[in-house]
Amino acid sequence: MLQYKDYFIWEIDETIEAFMNDTYKKIVDEKEHKVSGYYALGEDSLPIVDTVLEQIASSEFIQKCDTVVVIGIGGSSLGTKAIHSIFKHRHEDAKRMLFLENPDEIDLSQKLATIEKEKTIFIVVSKSGSTIETLSIFKEIISRFSLDYKDKDKHQIIAITDFDSALYKFAQHYGIQTYNIPKNVGGRFSVLSAVGIVPLTLAGYDTKALLNGASMMSKNFFALKEKHLLEKAAFFTTHKEQYPMNVMFSYANCLEDFTKWYVQLWGESLGKIDKEGENVGLTPIGHIGSVDQHSFLQLIMEGPRDKTVTFIKLENFEKKIKIPNITLKFIEKADYINGYTFNELIDGECEATKESIIQQGINVDEITLDKLNENNIGKLIMYYELLTSLCGKILHIDTYNQPGVELGKQILMKKFN
Amino acid sequence: MLQYKDYFIWEIDETIEAFMNDTYKKIVDEKEHKVSGYYALGEDSLPIVDTVLEQIASSEFIQKCDTVVVIGIGGSSLGTKAIHSIFKHRHEDAKRMLFLENPDEIDLSQKLATIEKEKTIFIVVSKSGSTIETLSIFKEIISRFSLDYKDKDKHQIIAITDFDSALYKFAQHYGIQTYNIPKNVGGRFSVLSAVGIVPLTLAGYDTKALLNGASMMSKNFFALKEKHLLEKAAFFTTHKEQYPMNVMFSYANCLEDFTKWYVQLWGESLGKIDKEGENVGLTPIGHIGSVDQHSFLQLIMEGPRDKTVTFIKLENFEKKIKIPNITLKFIEKADYINGYTFNELIDGECEATKESIIQQGINVDEITLDKLNENNIGKLIMYYELLTSLCGKILHIDTYNQPGVELGKQILMKKFN
Repeated sequence: MLQYKDYFIWEIDETIEAFMNDTYKKIVDEKEHKVSGYYALGEDSLPIVDTVLEQIASSEFIQKCDTVVVIGIGGSSLGTKAIHSIFKHRHEDAKRMLFLENPDEIDLSQKLATIEKEKTIFIVVSKSGSTIETLSIFKEIISRFSLDYKDKDKHQIIAITDFDSALYKFAQHYGIQTYNIPKNVGGRFSVLSAVGIVPLTLAGYDTKALLNGASMMSKNFFALKEKHLLEKAAFFTTHKEQYPMNVMFSYANCLEDFTKWYVQLWGESLGKIDKEGENVGLTPIGHIGSVDQHSFLQLIMEGPRDKTVTFIKLENFEKKIKIPNITLKFIEKADYINGYTFNELIDGECEATKESIIQQGINVDEITLDKLNENNIGKLIMYYELLTSLCGKILHIDTYNQPGVELGKQILMKKFN
Repeated sequence: MLQYKDYFIWEIDETIEAFMNDTYKKIVDEKEHKVSGYYALGEDSLPIVDTVLEQIASSEFIQKCDTVVVIGIGGSSLGTKAIHSIFKHRHEDAKRMLFLENPDEIDLSQKLATIEKEKTIFIVVSKSGSTIETLSIFKEIISRFSLDYKDKDKHQIIAITDFDSALYKFAQHYGIQTYNIPKNVGGRFSVLSAVGIVPLTLAGYDTKALLNGASMMSKNFFALKEKHLLEKAAFFTTHKEQYPMNVMFSYANCLEDFTKWYVQLWGESLGKIDKEGENVGLTPIGHIGSVDQHSFLQLIMEGPRDKTVTFIKLENFEKKIKIPNITLKFIEKADYINGYTFNELIDGECEATKESIIQQGINVDEITLDKLNENNIGKLIMYYELLTSLCGKILHIDTYNQPGVELGKQILMKKFN
């Protein structure tokens, strides 16, 4: 279960109610016209899970594999990595996952050095099918491991891409297994498509629960049972001049990659030129508690009042490690926490920080996960995707494209041609 | 060598020149009055290196140790971790470093599980000597490893803290080796004090080169040979309403922790209530290229014009891995990069992204490191510390305190008392 609570300083009057109703109608309309297909991925991707599970059951090679390598960048890796980072220490029998994203030689060398070809599945993910970083890394893998993609090693390779992309044609030509990304699902909204579902299922995570959670959130929202999403979108967008930034403060190290996924989703979707030619958008910032209380909190507390803050909190963690009942001579003042668990400490820090920020008159909201399981993470992903769509709708922009990154790609090509 | 270049869209007229001269005088005055002591750490910390080197030479235990554990959070760990992350894959014989920062049970359990007590030096770092997360984790280590800090294991422990703090008294009482942090050096400015120098020297890094680089930067600045620092500080602060955010875009994975150090330094130093009671500050945001071109770039390019962007670029990397001359059928379009190195690709991406951002009329500057060595990183650290002090001076704030984080600490204590 996910719980939402906001401490926004505003009154929802009739005008805002009407505005939210209008936004709701527009998003229903968008969904019905299939402008984006992510809304239905909770159901649409279930057959992919079954296909992969059958593949695992029938392939001794996959069963023996211990590593799933994802070659992809941006929307092709961030969501998958976020989910893997959350669960990798909760599933003892999950396969190791390696993400080859950046064309950084040191990072790449280190990761490649840990790969045993005979025990690895290589998944190439590129929506456009022509991502230069991804294809270059794939070539390096072919060369380094003498990966015979044309024949005897092709069972170790999977391509995930748009139907009819260059990568699709390549994979089809050599009989490499291929999964398509629905045309109307953009990279940063694609984690619940084959992009995330294939590697995560292969690695051993409960992707059905993930999809069910997402599906539940989407259905509930469209049944008007998650009205807080409309409120939050309305608050964020109508206050965008005043609060151009949203800080996601997550209280668990394993959520760091989730905040990176959120940064891409929010930043790349909402940073756009609107219908009137204006530059609009909201800037996402990710931080981890309690570490970043010792880093970014001062700025939130006393700096310009230009941020909203969203806390992500875990409840009922497995409470295991008690802070030992040890008194250190001269440091007795620190004994107040003895006997509590570290989780109680971090939870207390989250609450204390939240209260102190609210006392400053800063607009805060919080999302509490009662358990860290796939179902809840599926809900959380869909929650943020819906919130992004709602904000985009209100801002009169195309939430799903990214024309601003094209110029850099053209300049890059010219540099090497 | 570090090279600086800015593409700021402004004219430096006589008024700004006078303003910069005035700022320079004020910072000289601040230095002479020893408001902060970090300016001189490049020289002041050299004896610490010698002490540690002697200690290593005379201790068989330290020579045999393979792990340096730093127990600290915020300013007590971020800088040390940043430097370790940059160099760990460049020094084959460096000891492993482990940073125990967040009281996150999963993260903590994982890291603790990799520690072999007999081969580990434990360094407890807390400026105040009473940081609750750090002391709680230290207690857990005492309990889990039966660490006899009173007697037979005390040679494995080092305390780094303010003179006369609770931790100082504790360590002195039991004869645990203690290094002090100069009173006038705050946590986030302390990486070149014992805080960073002791663990990094123990781990095997060239901390003399680090200090020499810092010293050179500081001396050059005060000899008015680094005027770009004054210009940058003047530009950032006089445009703070227009550009409240600075994005540091670093083009190497190993710089990710450095961006986190910068985020603390910049955010916690400049996010303050000024003399007139106004909330001022500049928001730091860290990103890594080329990965985050696929995430945050769209927002920079088409979103609100509220950001300056600083590129950190590495030149003359070890050029090793060539992108193989492989043509993949149907994906021939990606062949333009074949035969170049991955480093050339990432460098090209940095240049292309920079050019595309400049074309949008966004204010950009860049710092180029000709080599990734300790000397250059020492310079870079001092560069950012000086820049922060200059901005703080212009904003009429106390750059070196952090009163805003106290409220949360008080609320936390009440929760457990």
